[in-house]
Amino acid sequence: MRRIGLLTSGGDCQALNAAMRGVVKCLYNSGEEVELYGFLEGYKGLIYSHFRLLTASDFSGILTRGGTILGSSRMPFKTIREPDEKGLDKVEAMKQNYHKLQLDCLVVLGGNGSQKTANLLNQEGLHVVSLPKTIDNDLWGTDMTFGFQSAVGIATDVIDRIHTTADSHGRVFIVEVMGHKAGWLTLNAGMASGADIILIPEIPYDIDKICEAIEARDKKGSHFTILAVAEGAISKQDAKLSKKEFKEKLANRRYPSVSYEVAAQIEKKTGREVRVTVPGHMQRGGTPDPYDRVFASRLGAEAGRLILKDQYGFMVAYKNREIVKVPLEEVAGKLKTVDPEASIIKEAKMLGISFGD
Amino acid sequence: MRRIGLLTSGGDCQALNAAMRGVVKCLYNSGEEVELYGFLEGYKGLIYSHFRLLTASDFSGILTRGGTILGSSRMPFKTIREPDEKGLDKVEAMKQNYHKLQLDCLVVLGGNGSQKTANLLNQEGLHVVSLPKTIDNDLWGTDMTFGFQSAVGIATDVIDRIHTTADSHGRVFIVEVMGHKAGWLTLNAGMASGADIILIPEIPYDIDKICEAIEARDKKGSHFTILAVAEGAISKQDAKLSKKEFKEKLANRRYPSVSYEVAAQIEKKTGREVRVTVPGHMQRGGTPDPYDRVFASRLGAEAGRLILKDQYGFMVAYKNREIVKVPLEEVAGKLKTVDPEASIIKEAKMLGISFGD
Amino acid sequence: MRRIGLLTSGGDCQALNAAMRGVVKCLYNSGEEVELYGFLEGYKGLIYSHFRLLTASDFSGILTRGGTILGSSRMPFKTIREPDEKGLDKVEAMKQNYHKLQLDCLVVLGGNGSQKTANLLNQEGLHVVSLPKTIDNDLWGTDMTFGFQSAVGIATDVIDRIHTTADSHGRVFIVEVMGHKAGWLTLNAGMASGADIILIPEIPYDIDKICEAIEARDKKGSHFTILAVAEGAISKQDAKLSKKEFKEKLANRRYPSVSYEVAAQIEKKTGREVRVTVPGHMQRGGTPDPYDRVFASRLGAEAGRLILKDQYGFMVAYKNREIVKVPLEEVAGKLKTVDPEASIIKEAKMLGISFGD
Amino acid sequence: MRRIGLLTSGGDCQALNAAMRGVVKCLYNSGEEVELYGFLEGYKGLIYSHFRLLTASDFSGILTRGGTILGSSRMPFKTIREPDEKGLDKVEAMKQNYHKLQLDCLVVLGGNGSQKTANLLNQEGLHVVSLPKTIDNDLWGTDMTFGFQSAVGIATDVIDRIHTTADSHGRVFIVEVMGHKAGWLTLNAGMASGADIILIPEIPYDIDKICEAIEARDKKGSHFTILAVAEGAISKQDAKLSKKEFKEKLANRRYPSVSYEVAAQIEKKTGREVRVTVPGHMQRGGTPDPYDRVFASRLGAEAGRLILKDQYGFMVAYKNREIVKVPLEEVAGKLKTVDPEASIIKEAKMLGISFGD
Repeated sequence: MRRIGLLTSGGDCQALNAAMRGVVKCLYNSGEEVELYGFLEGYKGLIYSHFRLLTASDFSGILTRGGTILGSSRMPFKTIREPDEKGLDKVEAMKQNYHKLQLDCLVVLGGNGSQKTANLLNQEGLHVVSLPKTIDNDLWGTDMTFGFQSAVGIATDVIDRIHTTADSHGRVFIVEVMGHKAGWLTLNAGMASGADIILIPEIPYDIDKICEAIEARDKKGSHFTILAVAEGAISKQDAKLSKKEFKEKLANRRYPSVSYEVAAQIEKKTGREVRVTVPGHMQRGGTPDPYDRVFASRLGAEAGRLILKDQYGFMVAYKNREIVKVPLEEVAGKLKTVDPEASIIKEAKMLGISFGD
Repeated sequence: MRRIGLLTSGGDCQALNAAMRGVVKCLYNSGEEVELYGFLEGYKGLIYSHFRLLTASDFSGILTRGGTILGSSRMPFKTIREPDEKGLDKVEAMKQNYHKLQLDCLVVLGGNGSQKTANLLNQEGLHVVSLPKTIDNDLWGTDMTFGFQSAVGIATDVIDRIHTTADSHGRVFIVEVMGHKAGWLTLNAGMASGADIILIPEIPYDIDKICEAIEARDKKGSHFTILAVAEGAISKQDAKLSKKEFKEKLANRRYPSVSYEVAAQIEKKTGREVRVTVPGHMQRGGTPDPYDRVFASRLGAEAGRLILKDQYGFMVAYKNREIVKVPLEEVAGKLKTVDPEASIIKEAKMLGISFGD
Repeated sequence: MRRIGLLTSGGDCQALNAAMRGVVKCLYNSGEEVELYGFLEGYKGLIYSHFRLLTASDFSGILTRGGTILGSSRMPFKTIREPDEKGLDKVEAMKQNYHKLQLDCLVVLGGNGSQKTANLLNQEGLHVVSLPKTIDNDLWGTDMTFGFQSAVGIATDVIDRIHTTADSHGRVFIVEVMGHKAGWLTLNAGMASGADIILIPEIPYDIDKICEAIEARDKKGSHFTILAVAEGAISKQDAKLSKKEFKEKLANRRYPSVSYEVAAQIEKKTGREVRVTVPGHMQRGGTPDPYDRVFASRLGAEAGRLILKDQYGFMVAYKNREIVKVPLEEVAGKLKTVDPEASIIKEAKMLGISFGD
Repeated sequence: MRRIGLLTSGGDCQALNAAMRGVVKCLYNSGEEVELYGFLEGYKGLIYSHFRLLTASDFSGILTRGGTILGSSRMPFKTIREPDEKGLDKVEAMKQNYHKLQLDCLVVLGGNGSQKTANLLNQEGLHVVSLPKTIDNDLWGTDMTFGFQSAVGIATDVIDRIHTTADSHGRVFIVEVMGHKAGWLTLNAGMASGADIILIPEIPYDIDKICEAIEARDKKGSHFTILAVAEGAISKQDAKLSKKEFKEKLANRRYPSVSYEVAAQIEKKTGREVRVTVPGHMQRGGTPDPYDRVFASRLGAEAGRLILKDQYGFMVAYKNREIVKVPLEEVAGKLKTVDPEASIIKEAKMLGISFGD
């Protein structure tokens, strides 16, 4: 009898359920007897021993369902190592609950911070297998994360719709796409939807270059311009600030986000009206796209296989079109961002897309 | 030979092209010789004589295309009657351009303000036929406007996506849906997506009732709540203000829109975290849905038929499932809003939806 | 305490779950105590006493789910009145099971045949309220049925996709749309997708007229043609046959369906290659569209209201944009088909669509 | 001045226009003067000198448009080498037309056969750059072809819709997915949609194993089963036949396709009703998905770059997540099929999917 714990941690995204279904189908089909414990609301559930015993019927029909049947919550890595308000040592609590339930393995579906915690628990002696969840595609050690391609689809659809209205009204439109540290989502949604200007955190922008690009389009007879702007886009000047200085600047910024700041600057410099659309959380919601469903299922199956072989301490990953395993300690704490010299950036520029640099 | 002018006015929406294609297909198929003048950017094109001669190929493949091939612009009714910055009398200019091109009829696709201007031009002796365009469905004289059902589809999709993430995180989420004066769009998208609370301009809300509804859900074990809030939602207190007082209040409001105000109040009163999503202009963009394509095509065909019969001064409309004509003078200046006593509101309440009243 | 039975009968369609959710939400929100019995696989479940006690959680999250949580089966009205293979009187069995469970009302969601059975049970003294379910929109007594608009969306999407490939290859394409007796679905999907020729059961076609329309398009430079053909489309010659003669003809037809027959005739007469696509059952599957979700929810709420007022013997219906009730005896056995003289047909013809007549 | 010819050959698919837009945007943005000749209907246009001079406006707005603005036609490699009915040597004709227009390069977008012809023309001394187009993903030398991921999306959507109706009626359903020689599309759509049984050409099936899988599901309480069956699926017995014997068998098969044969056998062996759905050509039509739009744009940009560097004789391809070039002679005449021992097959089996082997 194997006793397996499952938890989903951090911001939810598409295909979390598909991935869990993959793990569980693989375990059930192995013929071994399995008992499944679903911890509720991420690591919180493991800390405070909130869980549900799961059965096959919990996983029926969830391949296409968005969100997570276990609930999730954010718990920054830092706070995991600090005692809670009642003085409870969270790491110890998790270890105790793991052992109390006599678990053989904990399966963690999470992003960057969650992988760090998974690595910590692994180092503390728990058996952990993790899966790479994030719409940001910024996890080190894997070519792809699940949720990403679905989010690209949604952000693309938003920009497509803005396209027709921008065209009809001859307007400048900014669509703010999720991504504080990595520009993968903005880059791909921008390219997919034919955005004219793409601003990502990895390539600081010069507002004058942006205005030039808008005016160059105007001269060619294209009276509208679409900008896909990552939440974490940053100007060349701001990129030179120290972390502390930048934080201060953000705290005093009159605009709710960088998109509004860019909009105001374009309006001032070109005299043109600029509109901002912020699709926000919808980018992580709803049915996973077919790519993510296949991908998450494959990752889940591989996680199941590792468990059946008693191979722990790994994140299941995707490398060169194969599902592989990567040691958790290699993944934890690293970020995969867009290399400004990557060939996809060069190709985008060949297509006439401006990065404002 | 018939010489027909076409223009699309006001905020663009889905199925503008489908409707124009309908008019033009009907005229071409009549066997009569037709010459088509497309005025650019709405009434502006008629005022300043910016137009394109259109041919059959301009209408090929546009049934499914969002936006308007003629471009559009907003020109409030008030400003139409005022001279422009160079002292030009706009109404006179439109009449002159109409006559200079020897037009037999002007086809106007527009919303509320645009219908008023269409009526004015009709009263000034021009031959006008108009079509009811708006995602707000607030045009008097017709049961339905094109653009509406497509916008319902988009807003519903947004709320659907927010649903899975709200559920996963046990959060209160507000989705701000377009509609300053009429709640049709919010009401229908809210019902379609299973929103728990719907706030529309026609039913002023009481913030305490909203908080009660959230807490009642919590008690039943539903730890998340979705609010669909119209841009023009208004509290009971604000609804008592004079127009002037309310304008002043809006001018001083610390929040970018009513949704953020409601969010702040819920947070304060319930201690729960509330997130706001504002899909904005995407609601009027992209491919029209099948309903709007059929509907706009039928309206267009009927407009064509009226022209062929020299029947002018009408808006083509939809009444009791038939395409009919309504005198422009009956339409102009009136708004069709949601009756708080309408049976759809009662049905929504029977389904457990709160309107905060 | 009210004890309510629910069943879904006939071919499934979109929004069956949404409609049931509407009934149940209305009953629960009334404050009255309610016990819900879900009969499995349509009338079969009532005959053989296969049911599940349903609770609120069964209806959570099903607004957007396709199919029916109760299962369904076809049971032609004729067979309902005949004893089963073991000699069981089915009508008697249904009455006994209804009384054994001390039901106060039976809610039936079904199409044409199912409404006849509902009427029969009502005449036999059971309390029945029914809801108009069918993608065919052919139920007498209601302007609209749920499932219809969703099916229009799917069939439109199919034809849209065929459009690009037909255009690229300059081909004649036939898309066979569901509908044996009524052409509503084909008519609306055909108009929504810009089909050039639409064949429906209500307007018998002349193959020569079809070929003329194809060749007329060719002459105008449109080298492809799209036909939307209802399953029940019929030629003028066949329409003159007696029922018996036609049945015989069908039995001996070398083609799997009328679409293939039309295709072969076009190929023979014009020498052009014709392709046939038959999307089939997918037209009744998947998530209901926003229109159907609102519509089915409203119908469900009204059914709940009737039950709470002890008003039985009705189908809930839609008339002139209001939800109303229609006596079951008026509905049963009648079909609502497309009137060849209806204004929508005239409008379609004005748009240049040929019906082959 | 560079003079570039473009043609799209073989069955059309999604993102053909996106790929051409990529080539052309890259060329225009290079600053070099470019003249573009679009050959109509594939190689036919080059043979018979049917072409259009293309300008920037031809490529505006086509990123999202399905089909090909140049038209396409199938011309099997064999027939390219044979004279036409008037005795014209097609290869010579193509060479002459290429030289008459003083082309610097010919860009070919095509699948397997078209790549063979591209290689032939390259060997005959023309400058050729090609792009990998096919929904089948079966081109040797590239990890991915454009059109594939969009087709997966459509086939998945079909199976999703069939899923709800299969579940509601407890039926066995077969969805026939495109793919005569390669199972990539069926495999991915089947996994994405949770199909229970997947039959592909690369893994011959045993009908008894299929029936066992259906009955095993039944025993577990899953009363419906979904089969995703490739057009080219083949039984173990048939796989043993010689090419000639198999052709003969096909010629005499009473069923329109393998799906119907499998359906009949399941019905006979299990006594269960089986339905078949054949979505057909819709799988290659309509708007490309975001993945294909980015991918085709990148491939196009790289093709443009090769032309600007005078590097000819290559197919642009995708290897290990980078856009690369592959010599045409290496690509021509080879097929990339699914390896029955590939890890994706093992993962699918771990998920409980049966391949009938």
